Amino acid sequence: MPQSEKIQQLAESFEHFELGELGAGALCDDLAAVRDQDIARAMAGLGPEGMRRVLDVLPAERRGEVFGFLEPREQFALVERLDDATARELIEGLRPDNLTALLEDLSPEQGEAVVRRLSPDRVGQAMRLLGYPPESAGRLMTPEFIALDPAWTLSHALRHVQKHAGRSETVDELFITDADDRLLGRIGLRRLVLGDPEARVESLLGDAPVSIAVSEDREEAARLIQHYDLTALPVVDESGVLLGMITIDDVMDVVEEEATEDIHKLGGLGAQHVSLRGASVLQLFKKRIGWLLLLVFLAIFAAGAVSAFEETLEAAVVLSFFLPLIIGSGGNAGSQGATMMVRALATGDVTSKDWLRLWGRELGVATALGVTMGAAAWGIGLFYGGTMLANVVFLSMIAVVVFGSMVGMLLPFLLTRFRLDPATASAPLITSIADIGGILIYFGIATAWIGTSPAA
Amino acid sequence: MPQSEKIQQLAESFEHFELGELGAGALCDDLAAVRDQDIARAMAGLGPEGMRRVLDVLPAERRGEVFGFLEPREQFALVERLDDATARELIEGLRPDNLTALLEDLSPEQGEAVVRRLSPDRVGQAMRLLGYPPESAGRLMTPEFIALDPAWTLSHALRHVQKHAGRSETVDELFITDADDRLLGRIGLRRLVLGDPEARVESLLGDAPVSIAVSEDREEAARLIQHYDLTALPVVDESGVLLGMITIDDVMDVVEEEATEDIHKLGGLGAQHVSLRGASVLQLFKKRIGWLLLLVFLAIFAAGAVSAFEETLEAAVVLSFFLPLIIGSGGNAGSQGATMMVRALATGDVTSKDWLRLWGRELGVATALGVTMGAAAWGIGLFYGGTMLANVVFLSMIAVVVFGSMVGMLLPFLLTRFRLDPATASAPLITSIADIGGILIYFGIATAWIGTSPAA
Repeated sequence: MPQSEKIQQLAESFEHFELGELGAGALCDDLAAVRDQDIARAMAGLGPEGMRRVLDVLPAERRGEVFGFLEPREQFALVERLDDATARELIEGLRPDNLTALLEDLSPEQGEAVVRRLSPDRVGQAMRLLGYPPESAGRLMTPEFIALDPAWTLSHALRHVQKHAGRSETVDELFITDADDRLLGRIGLRRLVLGDPEARVESLLGDAPVSIAVSEDREEAARLIQHYDLTALPVVDESGVLLGMITIDDVMDVVEEEATEDIHKLGGLGAQHVSLRGASVLQLFKKRIGWLLLLVFLAIFAAGAVSAFEETLEAAVVLSFFLPLIIGSGGNAGSQGATMMVRALATGDVTSKDWLRLWGRELGVATALGVTMGAAAWGIGLFYGGTMLANVVFLSMIAVVVFGSMVGMLLPFLLTRFRLDPATASAPLITSIADIGGILIYFGIATAWIGTSPAA
Repeated sequence: MPQSEKIQQLAESFEHFELGELGAGALCDDLAAVRDQDIARAMAGLGPEGMRRVLDVLPAERRGEVFGFLEPREQFALVERLDDATARELIEGLRPDNLTALLEDLSPEQGEAVVRRLSPDRVGQAMRLLGYPPESAGRLMTPEFIALDPAWTLSHALRHVQKHAGRSETVDELFITDADDRLLGRIGLRRLVLGDPEARVESLLGDAPVSIAVSEDREEAARLIQHYDLTALPVVDESGVLLGMITIDDVMDVVEEEATEDIHKLGGLGAQHVSLRGASVLQLFKKRIGWLLLLVFLAIFAAGAVSAFEETLEAAVVLSFFLPLIIGSGGNAGSQGATMMVRALATGDVTSKDWLRLWGRELGVATALGVTMGAAAWGIGLFYGGTMLANVVFLSMIAVVVFGSMVGMLLPFLLTRFRLDPATASAPLITSIADIGGILIYFGIATAWIGTSPAA
């Protein structure tokens, strides 16, 4: 991939520069042809001191841009090493939504070190934005936008945009507000440019625009932008006053982060956000041990279930050969069901109201899967232990696959009902529950059969 | 959520309309206040005949819009039921990228039925776009864009944009091309509007713009748009001729689809794209049975592994109580490792070059996890079977967790090395491999211990 290679190459130049094999002048020339985003990405491999030295080489006007593209952690590490004047300038230059992201990521003491370097205006703004709930639309928005008066002519509005363009992240989307700053409408720059210059802004007022309440979940913001193909989504308070906007590029990152969060939960990992690249052993341990220990304790019930059938097992040790197959199959079928369900709930493909219809269908699918897998397992059973074992394995397989699938399918809905995250129904959790159920089903069927038949 | 409720409500109105409880006039009034995207979403619950009837109620000028927001399958079902003139009009009105998406989804015969209704110009365009490889940038792009001549003045360029605005999906991004249609640069509408009207377009030419080759993977297009915060990405052929553009809203859908694909693979599901809402039992069966059968056959080795230790098991049936715990823990730890690795590879957080460093760290994390879990399991072992069993369980737990984690971590890298999708390292696959390894480790340790100690 050309882009990742470019970054790799740049990272190597940085290493040569750190080792003194490449002069500052030569590096500066190299950097002239490279985009700010690539510089920021390639800097990630350097320590804070290395980052500082590369930043020094950059022309002053590019520093702010490159700094803006760094990860919050990297930005903070840099701020601690820069002279106060440069640090102030870089922090002050951050876009409001990026500053929120930085402060969100820092401990209170670190945050204070950043806030101390801000102008009073920016401190007030930052505090206001951080006052909204975590993961809310307010945390994601930028309070800088361009608002137009409905009474203006288009040509007057266009002059206003030209004058204040620097203040807004985008001027492709403009908003129309009344005298009390309440949102009346939105209008694309294209319509301003393409319309009759003497027409009034209000003549372009269409239906009430799609907007989001400031305290709503940022995932809802992502959904709205995606569903209505918006470039920027206005954010309003309870009385409809326009507070800011969320742009589509910020939402792309949200979509990716939320997908990662769901994938991690489905894999039985904690919700803590850590970059795998930069994570410490301790961070990774913490992200993983919680669920693993919980599953160990769930397995006590599995051990108990097996021990309840000690006599059956002593009578026919061959039964234990198939234990991994039987319980594994229930877990696998259940993991599949849960995975499909969790993802479909997350993307809005299905809603919790659909559960009954989906449950009926899952029952059909699971029975078909169980019979097919049971037929395959019947052959294996015949090979190891004869007809009776084969029959026990066949019946158990069907029951276990249906049981696992039902658990996998229903648990995400149950969690949603209790306002918990459906992605908590992870593959490991489903597998552990299917283990216990599978043991009881398998040994239960075996005991009944052995009780009524000649010994194996 | 207000938006999903709105759609729910609309879907109910459609039902009342189908049942004759709501007249066409009343429905038409209701629809006037609703957005096209919401109508399309709410129609999804209706059969093709119901969709046709709702479409009939809509004013003619909205039909095309609503039709454009339907899923490809729904579009096709509708086309088959509409009178020829309306069908022609709706298909002809689709944006080129949406038409590509529709044709991609249809069987050759169905595709022919659609193409037959297109004008010759559109047929040629559609065939050209479908000529690019599946999942390529070419399949995602729209060939409609506005290109400016570098010699024009900004005011001339603006007039050109005003004249041709209808032809392009967005005019927020404009492209500058030379006499041979080669891409020279890009320019935002805002700069055209904000610049000196007498300046030349070429004066705004900056660095060569980010672009993508037409046959490149669409995931790379998504990465570029995300990394460089673009609104539209130009698509070029080998000689740099501008062929089309990919807009950020199309890429959002790609990010979501690719995440779903990865999540499904990680859950041990086939790659076929089916909407859970609309899928049939047979489709779901097909999506799931492949992996499940493969895992059943893997489990033959697990059965073989247990049977190899038949004597040990007969000597101490208590060992089988802990089988689910031991093998389950290896699978759980391995699933976690694989999940983190696959996602980090997909988002570019780590690359395959990092494997050695990550392997070392995983070894440390896995040992720490194994010791912690082993300590917990030691207590359970003591309760059921005394010190010796507890010690066997403790040691096995460490070995099994380390083994599972190594498999989970390394398999995605191995798959990448062989140019396979790392997401194939699904939780069920890792669990099945960890089962076999776990059985050998657990019974191996138990046999060695029992061989040197008094019987349990």
